[in-house]
Amino acid sequence: MTEDNVVYIGNKPVMNYVLAVVTQFNNGASEVAVKARGKAISRAVDVVEVAKNRFLENSKVKDIKIGTEKIATDRGESNVSIIEIVMVK
Amino acid sequence: MTEDNVVYIGNKPVMNYVLAVVTQFNNGASEVAVKARGKAISRAVDVVEVAKNRFLENSKVKDIKIGTEKIATDRGESNVSIIEIVMVK
Repeated sequence: MTEDNVVYIGNKPVMNYVLAVVTQFNNGASEVAVKARGKAISRAVDVVEVAKNRFLENSKVKDIKIGTEKIATDRGESNVSIIEIVMVK
Repeated sequence: MTEDNVVYIGNKPVMNYVLAVVTQFNNGASEVAVKARGKAISRAVDVVEVAKNRFLENSKVKDIKIGTEKIATDRGESNVSIIEIVMVK
């Protein structure tokens, strides 16, 4: 899987990211990884569920990984949770 | 696994739920399921990561499932994303 098949979830509305996932599959991707960290993790799950249930009915979740990353903040290093959800079609 | 081995994540601080998970393992559970829905999903991942990295170093994540549930609201039915993370020790 190339880095092109990754959708990073930020603070935009869920449907923006759903569109990004659907577009990647429509452009021929066989796998798309949805990645998020911190509070965006909930939105990442929403994105995958909406994409799967409403737009890509023959897709499924292949793998879900969670982990911890260190990020630099004003007050030194901080831990943030991450998620990666791999969808296949 | 009995229903006793489930920790439901709500709006309390992360450490409250970490303590609940650690307590269940200390009471002899071999598996604990951490469940959340909606915006609490991010906190569920935090709980599992903190429990695993700081308190239960010989534990690991056995399975992660995501899905969608219908909930009743003032304005009719609404969809909410859910997550279930199963930890084993």
